[in-house]
Amino acid sequence: MTRGFETQEYRDRVARAQRAMSEADLGALLLTTEPEIRYFTGFLTRFWESPSRPWFLIVPESGAPVAVIPSIGAALMARTWIEDIRTWAAPHPVDDGVSLLAQTLHELAPGGRVGLPSGRETHLRMPLADFGRLQAMGIDFGDDAGIMARLRAVKSEAEITKIRRACAIAGRAFDRVGEVAGEGAALEEVFRGFQRLLLEEGADWVPYLAGGAGPLGYADVISPADATPLQRGDVLMLDTGAVWDGYFCDYDRNFAIGEASPRAEAAWGHLLDAVAAAEEVARPGARASDVWQAMAQIVGAGETAGRLGHGLGMQLTEGLSLTARDGAVLEEGMVITLEPGIETVEGLFIVHEENIVIRDGPPERLSPFASGSLPVIGA
Amino acid sequence: MTRGFETQEYRDRVARAQRAMSEADLGALLLTTEPEIRYFTGFLTRFWESPSRPWFLIVPESGAPVAVIPSIGAALMARTWIEDIRTWAAPHPVDDGVSLLAQTLHELAPGGRVGLPSGRETHLRMPLADFGRLQAMGIDFGDDAGIMARLRAVKSEAEITKIRRACAIAGRAFDRVGEVAGEGAALEEVFRGFQRLLLEEGADWVPYLAGGAGPLGYADVISPADATPLQRGDVLMLDTGAVWDGYFCDYDRNFAIGEASPRAEAAWGHLLDAVAAAEEVARPGARASDVWQAMAQIVGAGETAGRLGHGLGMQLTEGLSLTARDGAVLEEGMVITLEPGIETVEGLFIVHEENIVIRDGPPERLSPFASGSLPVIGA
Repeated sequence: MTRGFETQEYRDRVARAQRAMSEADLGALLLTTEPEIRYFTGFLTRFWESPSRPWFLIVPESGAPVAVIPSIGAALMARTWIEDIRTWAAPHPVDDGVSLLAQTLHELAPGGRVGLPSGRETHLRMPLADFGRLQAMGIDFGDDAGIMARLRAVKSEAEITKIRRACAIAGRAFDRVGEVAGEGAALEEVFRGFQRLLLEEGADWVPYLAGGAGPLGYADVISPADATPLQRGDVLMLDTGAVWDGYFCDYDRNFAIGEASPRAEAAWGHLLDAVAAAEEVARPGARASDVWQAMAQIVGAGETAGRLGHGLGMQLTEGLSLTARDGAVLEEGMVITLEPGIETVEGLFIVHEENIVIRDGPPERLSPFASGSLPVIGA
Repeated sequence: MTRGFETQEYRDRVARAQRAMSEADLGALLLTTEPEIRYFTGFLTRFWESPSRPWFLIVPESGAPVAVIPSIGAALMARTWIEDIRTWAAPHPVDDGVSLLAQTLHELAPGGRVGLPSGRETHLRMPLADFGRLQAMGIDFGDDAGIMARLRAVKSEAEITKIRRACAIAGRAFDRVGEVAGEGAALEEVFRGFQRLLLEEGADWVPYLAGGAGPLGYADVISPADATPLQRGDVLMLDTGAVWDGYFCDYDRNFAIGEASPRAEAAWGHLLDAVAAAEEVARPGARASDVWQAMAQIVGAGETAGRLGHGLGMQLTEGLSLTARDGAVLEEGMVITLEPGIETVEGLFIVHEENIVIRDGPPERLSPFASGSLPVIGA
């Protein structure tokens, strides 16, 4: 399968952004984070793990984007479709790209307002002190009118293909969990082993792995693993965000170690029912809260409980939240997770998750949906 | 080896911060990013991969830190030494923790200035729109007077122990690179295989892996791998940030595939000499620019070239930069990388990297220093 996208895909994204910018009266967008910059350029590197250097992309109201980046990134950016690449020797203790960025913004958006993603899930990836300097240099910043969030929420077929592949990779790794987990195995060894399986099955990398284990589930789903050994009767959950070519899957699987208790089986059955109910509701025009409602009434989730799913794509989680409070309207091409959780006893949960894409009609399953009874390993 | 730190380590960190806050006349620090919050709490999770929720920690001018976090993190935060944990049901489309945070800041720092890390390498991990709301609620924000950067730059022995272990894990994996790399192997398969080796040797996870290959080196050191097969005579470089218990190693190794060319060997010799020269200079009281100079004169780096090393710890790169421009003074307990690169022909480089900790006297080697001729694999 080919990596990257056709240049036309990037041109289409820029054109859509520019139409929205025109409506919002923005002279440019200024982007500073990994997914925002990758969305328009295809610039893909794990180097973002280093916080030392800021990176900037400017999408002007017409014409191609301009990259204002540390010189260490010039060679890789030159391999993308971006032609106007301006660099400085970063990190610089006094002027870390600020004057070059200001000059470029003045040139590309003279007198115009510069939109910054400023709403839910966003942040400005540059030092606040440097942002203050830019403002003092006369750049007129405002929010991006939600343009980036709206653009990224609906995936192209080429993007969906990558997510589908990431899901398939994880599916093959989940099929092999019995190789690395069983009675007596320390949870941290299981985590390491499962990451190895994901890589063997074709993941480029594994930015996210969480999980837990216990007879009736786990207290939370974000903790790192420790040396606790798995015990017969535990329910083990592994939840991964594995990546292929910059796109995530995000789903989990639960396994009973040796045997499944009737209470765990009962909870499992409710979780499958909840996902099935959500699938029935997840149609273009439905609201995120409708999909939440379909699951919540089966698993007994209250309105202030955690969300039961979310958008998915270039990031592990992005876009809408399946909560009682989120009125986002589903559109064709949105990729979301269905992630019902059920409390088995006070403070312990079992959580199940699948990935779908909204279609005209029933959603397409991207993860290989679980069915039947709770899988038992090491029996 | 024990995970985490004794509570006393966190208390000491808070006490040091509070002394500096008093000098800087700050009523509180507000922290929003993963390493900043982990530094004072020990809150360790890969869940930061999800951008959906902001997280806040307040260090008041006296007393223990207070966490203001999404409820999904309450169980894990309760396992740290932090006792005052305030939560909200996130993500919330209208008030995503802002009023709870404002109320807590008003309570903990009434009328006082709230310091935010604002200089090099920092960012504010919350939506700009929400930051504006906080300001409108009367919180007086200023910068943190560089307190976080100074505190984190010098590592405790307990921190150094973790970095040493991460380095040892990577060392064992580098010793096995011949198992996954050789003539004809696609670079992307080598990357996957090397990540597997790191996990097998005990890494908790592998947030960073970069590299390149070519007869006289590589055009950059941040590109992802592609399907290009290794050829006899290539120099393969693998550069990893592998993590154990939340602390990184960051060093690379170069390998000649089948045979090493005389020009590659010559470059390699200069790189070893450069690291040795840097080791002689890296003493308490020396400046980052002095260590840069020691390497630059051997590898022929110009003043505007990339840096030749950097600080290391909870992040892949943090703190000082070994450049001509960085006047940071080395102190005992600082962990840094020595990362000389040399241009072999126009646009191609070989880069070598080791990790050390500054001691009273010669630095301690944390990575198992390379020596001798360029290692050949698949001969």
